[in-house]
Amino acid sequence: MQYQYRTSSQIKEDIAGSKVAILPVGAVEAHGPHLPLGTDNVLAERLAGRLAEQVDALVLPILPYGQVWSLRHFPGSITIRNQSLIDIVVDIGKSLYTQGIELFVIVNGHLGNGTALKEAARELYDACPELKVVYLFYPGMQKAAKKVRETPALHDAYFHACELETSFMLYLAPEYVNMAQAICDMPDIPVSADATPTPWEEFTSTAVLGDATAAKEEKGEFIINISLKNMVRIIRDVQELVPKDKNRSF
Amino acid sequence: MQYQYRTSSQIKEDIAGSKVAILPVGAVEAHGPHLPLGTDNVLAERLAGRLAEQVDALVLPILPYGQVWSLRHFPGSITIRNQSLIDIVVDIGKSLYTQGIELFVIVNGHLGNGTALKEAARELYDACPELKVVYLFYPGMQKAAKKVRETPALHDAYFHACELETSFMLYLAPEYVNMAQAICDMPDIPVSADATPTPWEEFTSTAVLGDATAAKEEKGEFIINISLKNMVRIIRDVQELVPKDKNRSF
Amino acid sequence: MQYQYRTSSQIKEDIAGSKVAILPVGAVEAHGPHLPLGTDNVLAERLAGRLAEQVDALVLPILPYGQVWSLRHFPGSITIRNQSLIDIVVDIGKSLYTQGIELFVIVNGHLGNGTALKEAARELYDACPELKVVYLFYPGMQKAAKKVRETPALHDAYFHACELETSFMLYLAPEYVNMAQAICDMPDIPVSADATPTPWEEFTSTAVLGDATAAKEEKGEFIINISLKNMVRIIRDVQELVPKDKNRSF
Amino acid sequence: MQYQYRTSSQIKEDIAGSKVAILPVGAVEAHGPHLPLGTDNVLAERLAGRLAEQVDALVLPILPYGQVWSLRHFPGSITIRNQSLIDIVVDIGKSLYTQGIELFVIVNGHLGNGTALKEAARELYDACPELKVVYLFYPGMQKAAKKVRETPALHDAYFHACELETSFMLYLAPEYVNMAQAICDMPDIPVSADATPTPWEEFTSTAVLGDATAAKEEKGEFIINISLKNMVRIIRDVQELVPKDKNRSF
Amino acid sequence: MQYQYRTSSQIKEDIAGSKVAILPVGAVEAHGPHLPLGTDNVLAERLAGRLAEQVDALVLPILPYGQVWSLRHFPGSITIRNQSLIDIVVDIGKSLYTQGIELFVIVNGHLGNGTALKEAARELYDACPELKVVYLFYPGMQKAAKKVRETPALHDAYFHACELETSFMLYLAPEYVNMAQAICDMPDIPVSADATPTPWEEFTSTAVLGDATAAKEEKGEFIINISLKNMVRIIRDVQELVPKDKNRSF
Amino acid sequence: MQYQYRTSSQIKEDIAGSKVAILPVGAVEAHGPHLPLGTDNVLAERLAGRLAEQVDALVLPILPYGQVWSLRHFPGSITIRNQSLIDIVVDIGKSLYTQGIELFVIVNGHLGNGTALKEAARELYDACPELKVVYLFYPGMQKAAKKVRETPALHDAYFHACELETSFMLYLAPEYVNMAQAICDMPDIPVSADATPTPWEEFTSTAVLGDATAAKEEKGEFIINISLKNMVRIIRDVQELVPKDKNRSF
Repeated sequence: MQYQYRTSSQIKEDIAGSKVAILPVGAVEAHGPHLPLGTDNVLAERLAGRLAEQVDALVLPILPYGQVWSLRHFPGSITIRNQSLIDIVVDIGKSLYTQGIELFVIVNGHLGNGTALKEAARELYDACPELKVVYLFYPGMQKAAKKVRETPALHDAYFHACELETSFMLYLAPEYVNMAQAICDMPDIPVSADATPTPWEEFTSTAVLGDATAAKEEKGEFIINISLKNMVRIIRDVQELVPKDKNRSF
Repeated sequence: MQYQYRTSSQIKEDIAGSKVAILPVGAVEAHGPHLPLGTDNVLAERLAGRLAEQVDALVLPILPYGQVWSLRHFPGSITIRNQSLIDIVVDIGKSLYTQGIELFVIVNGHLGNGTALKEAARELYDACPELKVVYLFYPGMQKAAKKVRETPALHDAYFHACELETSFMLYLAPEYVNMAQAICDMPDIPVSADATPTPWEEFTSTAVLGDATAAKEEKGEFIINISLKNMVRIIRDVQELVPKDKNRSF
Repeated sequence: MQYQYRTSSQIKEDIAGSKVAILPVGAVEAHGPHLPLGTDNVLAERLAGRLAEQVDALVLPILPYGQVWSLRHFPGSITIRNQSLIDIVVDIGKSLYTQGIELFVIVNGHLGNGTALKEAARELYDACPELKVVYLFYPGMQKAAKKVRETPALHDAYFHACELETSFMLYLAPEYVNMAQAICDMPDIPVSADATPTPWEEFTSTAVLGDATAAKEEKGEFIINISLKNMVRIIRDVQELVPKDKNRSF
Repeated sequence: MQYQYRTSSQIKEDIAGSKVAILPVGAVEAHGPHLPLGTDNVLAERLAGRLAEQVDALVLPILPYGQVWSLRHFPGSITIRNQSLIDIVVDIGKSLYTQGIELFVIVNGHLGNGTALKEAARELYDACPELKVVYLFYPGMQKAAKKVRETPALHDAYFHACELETSFMLYLAPEYVNMAQAICDMPDIPVSADATPTPWEEFTSTAVLGDATAAKEEKGEFIINISLKNMVRIIRDVQELVPKDKNRSF
Repeated sequence: MQYQYRTSSQIKEDIAGSKVAILPVGAVEAHGPHLPLGTDNVLAERLAGRLAEQVDALVLPILPYGQVWSLRHFPGSITIRNQSLIDIVVDIGKSLYTQGIELFVIVNGHLGNGTALKEAARELYDACPELKVVYLFYPGMQKAAKKVRETPALHDAYFHACELETSFMLYLAPEYVNMAQAICDMPDIPVSADATPTPWEEFTSTAVLGDATAAKEEKGEFIINISLKNMVRIIRDVQELVPKDKNRSF
Repeated sequence: MQYQYRTSSQIKEDIAGSKVAILPVGAVEAHGPHLPLGTDNVLAERLAGRLAEQVDALVLPILPYGQVWSLRHFPGSITIRNQSLIDIVVDIGKSLYTQGIELFVIVNGHLGNGTALKEAARELYDACPELKVVYLFYPGMQKAAKKVRETPALHDAYFHACELETSFMLYLAPEYVNMAQAICDMPDIPVSADATPTPWEEFTSTAVLGDATAAKEEKGEFIINISLKNMVRIIRDVQELVPKDKNRSF
C-alpha cells in the first residue's frame, strides 16, 4: 500500500490497522555501463514493495538521495552529507511517530547510507519512547551469496554493479539492465582502503567491482528471497520485543 | 530525460549537451477527502516532466518530503524542518555543480517549501560561483487564476485542495482525483494567521480551503500552461544573464 | 512605556499589569540619497511606540540589525544571517516568557526579516507552551497604499525608499528625510528576481524602487494609521484566542 | 557620527575618511532599585559616543541584548546565549569588513558579554584577513577605581549597580539615576562562585553588589576618563600594529 | 617517542625527521568482572607504542573517551557523542597538519569509535590537502583470530571482554587482568541487534561476550602481532600513495 | 582512586561510597626550552591525584587536549575549538550524572580552557538538575604567588613557563623539568593584548613569560598547597550548598 496515494482519512484508518511504515532509501550513483545511476533507488523501492506485502505495511515515497562519498567524483553521482541524511530521516521518523506508527522500517539500497541510518535510528530511540526503528540492508546476503556466486568477491563489505547487484536487478528490475554493456572489472582494492579515505577512482575507472557478465536472474532471486525472509524475521522479532525502559540506568 | 535512468557515461554526454537539471520537490500532506497525501509530489513531478521537454533539461528524482508545519497535525502529514530541506538541497546543488550542471532548476509543488528553497538558493549562490539556481512555484499562477476561478480565494497566498489545486490535478494527474469525494469548505481564515503561528486545525478540519467541487480540468490546463510558459521564460532570462562578480563590494 | 528605562521592581509590577511586550526589529541598509541607513530602525521604533500606547504594552529596545541579503553590497548595508536573527529573537522570547510576558509582539520595519521572524515565532510556539508571538510588517498596507499612491508599484512585495516608505518617514520621522535629495528611479525588476537569487545591484544603482519625490506626509499618515489599526486588531484577536493544546495529534 | 543616520553615499565617503567603526553592546538586566534595566546600554552608548569623538570613528546602533546568565532570574532581565551573541557580532564584523572598515571597535557595557566578544573577535581574526577587532570593557578601570572608591569591592571582577557603576551613571547619564532609591547591600559572595555556576539569587535579592549610596559623579568622571584614555591608547596601538601573516606556521 | 614529553624545539626537529603522528583513542566502558573500565585505553596506548617503534612515529597522548552507546547504561561507562569525537579528532588533525605532520595515524581500541573516526578522516581529507589520515582497529584481526580461538565468536563484528580481548590484555597489559574473575557468558545476541538500536543490556548483564576463561597470552600475542604487521603494511602503502588531486571532477 | 582501572562492578560500589569524580583537563602546548609540551597535562593529573586523596574522589583519565589559541602557531602546540571542548565535557558530565555522580570536579591545568569549562558547567547546570559542577584553575594562586615570587609578573592573568609554572613542575613533576635549559624572557606584553586577538608570537619567540631560572621547588610547594587547600574548601562548600530550584523564576 503506497502511503502517498492514500487520502488523509484513509491513512488514518490504515494506521489504525497497521502500525508499520517502510521508507525506501537509495542513492544516485555511478553503476557502470550497464546499470542506471538510480540502481539503488530501483532496488530499494522494489524490495520495500515486496516486504510490505509480507508484513502488512505502508510504503512511503522513496528518499532517492544518499551519502555517496566513495564515488562522488564519478559522472552523475550525487552525494549528500551524512548529517543531512540523518536529519531528514529523524524528521520523518518523528512525524510518523506522531501519526501513530509504531514500527518504522528503513529499507536501504545503498551501503554508504548505513552509517547515517544507524545514527538516525539511535537518535529516534532517545527521542520517541515507544517508536521502534529498523534499518535493513540485504540482511543475510553475504552468506546467501556464497552459495550462488561464481566469481570472487573483491571485498568483505563492498559489492557494486557486479555479479551480485546486477543479479538483483535482473530479478527485481530487468527492464533497467543492459547486459550487452555488462563488463568484468577486477580491480585490486588496496588493503588500505579500509583504513584511509579512498575515493574509488583510486582503483577503478568503471565503478564495476567484479564480473557483471556473470549476473543471472536466478542468483538474484535466490539471494533476494533470503534477504526478504530475514527482513520479515527481524521485523517479527522486533515487534515482539518488549524493551525495558529506554533511559533507565542499569 | 530522467537523470536516474541514465548510466554514468550517458549522463556525462547528456550534461555535455545540456547544462540544466530539474529537481522536483513536493511533500506528503493532507489534501482533503478527494486528493491523495502525495498531491504535491505528483504535481511537481508532472510539471517537471513537461518543463524538461521545453527547456531540454534532465529531470532528477523527486525529493518527496517537505516542510509541512501548518498541517503537521493532520492525519498522514509528514514534515521535515526547514534546515533539513535547506541542507539536502544545498548538497544536491553542490554535486550537480561538480558534475558540470550550470543551471539548477527546482520545481516546487508545496508552498511551505518556499522559504527553505530560497535560502538554499542563496547559500548556493555564495558557495558555487558559476552555478545559477532557479526555484519555481507556479509563477504567474495568481494572475492566471483570476481569469478562470468561479469561487472566491480564501487567502492571498494559500490555496490548498481547492478549486485551483484540484483543477491542476484533474489536468495533470486525473487518475489520482476522486471528485465524488470533493467538498466545498469555506473556513474563515483569521487575519492573524499571517501574523502568528497558526496551525490549520485552528480553522479547518477538512484541510480543503475552498470549493473543490468547482474544479475543472480546463481551469487546470489554463493556469498550468501559463505557469509553464512563465517557467520557460524565467529560465531563458536567467540563462542569458551575465551576472557580475557575485561577491564584489559595490 | 520603555522597558529598559524601568527598574527591576518596576518592571515586575508593569508585567503584573500588562503581559504584552513589543520588540521593534529593523535593519541598517542603503535607502537612497534622501533617507538614512537606519530608516527601518526609525520606522520600527516609532511604530512600536504608537502601538504600545494603544495596546498598553512595554516597548523593548530595538534590535537594529537585520537580514539584508538583497542590498548587502550597497554602501553602508550591514547584514546578519537568518539564523543569527532567529536565534536572538528566540532567546529574547524565552526570557520574556520566563518573566511572565504572555504576548510577544514583534514590530518589523524591514521586509527581509520576515522569514527569520516567522521561523522564530514557530520555534517559540513549540518551546513556550503559553506564549503567543505576533510578527507584524505593516499589515494591510498594500491595500491601503492603492488608495493613495500616485506612482506605480514596481513589485508585488518589495517597496523601498520609494513613494511609500518615504511617505512613512515624512509622517513618522520627518527630521530624517531630505526631500531635496529625493529621486525617481523606476528600474525594471526582472521577473526572474522572484525565482533566482538577485542582488539588487543587478537592476538598480540607487536602491530607490520608485518615485520618492511623490512622497507626502498625508500618504504616510493614511497608510500607517490603517496599519496600526490592523496591528491593534490582530493583537486583540490573538489575545482572545484560546488555542487548543499545541502539540496534540489531530 | 551616528552611522545609521547617514545615507548610503554619505557613509561611503565617511568610510573613505575613517576606517573605524564602533559597536556599543549592552544588556537588559536588573540593576537594583535605583538604576534602570538598560543601564549597561546607556553606559555603552554614551562611552561609544565620547570615544568616537576622540578617535574619529563612526558609531553603530547599539546591540542592546547581552548574555545575562547570572541575573537571568531577576525581574526584567533578558538573556541571550553566548553563541547568539557571537554569531551576530561576527556577522556585523564581516559586513563592516566588506564595507571597507579596517578597525572594528566593540565598546562593551556588560561584563557577561566578555566571553562572547572575545570569541567573536577571534573568529573574525581568522575570517577577515585585514580586519582588526578591539573589544573594550572599561580598560584600566580596576586600578583607577582603587583611587576613588570609599567602600570595599566585593569581588575581583564583578561590580554591579554599586558605588562604581552608579557613579558612572551619575557622570554619563544622571537623568536615569534615582539616588533616593540607592541602597547599600554587601552580600557575602561565596568563594565557590568563581568555580561553580552560581546564579546571583544565591547571595543577593537586590542585585546591588556594594554601596550604591556612596556613588558620586566625580568618582564616575575620574574612572571613566581614565578608561577612555586607555581606550584611545589601545586603539592607537592597534592601528599602528603591522601584524604578521595571520595564519602562518611559526 | 612520546610527543607530549618533548619540548617545543625538540618536537620541531622530531617532525623534521618524521612526519608521522599516532593518536591512540579508547573509551571508558564496562568490560566484565575481570577487566578494567579503561581496557580500550590501555590497549590503544600499548599498541600505539609498539607501532611507533616500527614506523618511527611520534605518539600523542591518548584521547581516552569514546562513543559507548551500546554499553552506556552499564556501571562506569562514559559515552560521548559521535559528533563530539569527530570534532575533537578533526581539530587535532588540523593542528598536526599545521605543525608539519604528513601522516596522522589513529590507533583505535574501541569498535564503537569506528564511525566517528572514519567520518573525521573524510572531513580532514577535504580540509587538509596534503594530510593523509589512517584509522586502525586491529586490522586483519578477524582472520587471525580464527586460527587461535577455541571458543565460538558470538557476532561477526563485536568482540568484547571475551577470549580475544582478554588475550590481548594478557599479552599487552597483564597487570590489569584479573583472571580469577574471568567468566564465560554466551548470550544469544538477537539477529535484530544489527538492524535496530539494541543496548546490550537487552541480552547480557555481564558485558562479557564469550568465554573469557579461555584467554591466553599466546593467543593475544599471535593476533596482536599480525595486526601490528598489518598496521605497518597499511602505513607503508599509504605513505607510498601519490593521490591524485583530491577534489578534481572525474 | 583511578576510575578507569576499576571494573564495572567495583565502580558501582565506589560511586555508592563517594559521589565525587575528578576530571583533569590539560593541553599540549609550547612551554619553552625547559618544559615539555604536556606540562599542563602533567600538572592537572598530579593535582587531581592529590586532590582526590583529600576529598575521597574518583579520578577520571585526563582529557589532554585543550584550547590553545594564543600559542597555536608555536611548534608542537595542538589546539581544539572551544565548542569541541564544551561538547566533550558536557557529554562526560551527563554520563557521570547517569552513573550516580553528584559532584563533577574539573581540575584544569591550562588557562585557555577556562572559557569552555565555565560554559560547559553552565550547560550541565541546566541539563542535569541535581549535578553540581566545579571547575578549578589554581584557586587563590595569584595571592599566594605574591608571597614567594622573586621576579615580576608580566600580566594580571597569564603566567606561562615562568618562575611560577616551572616551580609547580619542580614540586609536582621534577622529572620533566630541564632547569639547565631554563631561561629568563621578559617580553613587553602590549596593553592591547587584552583587547584584541593577539597570538603570542607577536611578543615572544620563546613562549616563556618571565624568569624561569628563578623557579624553586619550594615556591611551587607553597603555592600548590594553598591552591589545594582552596580546592578542598570550595568542594566542601559546594557539597554543603542546598541550591534552590534551578529554573525557578525569581
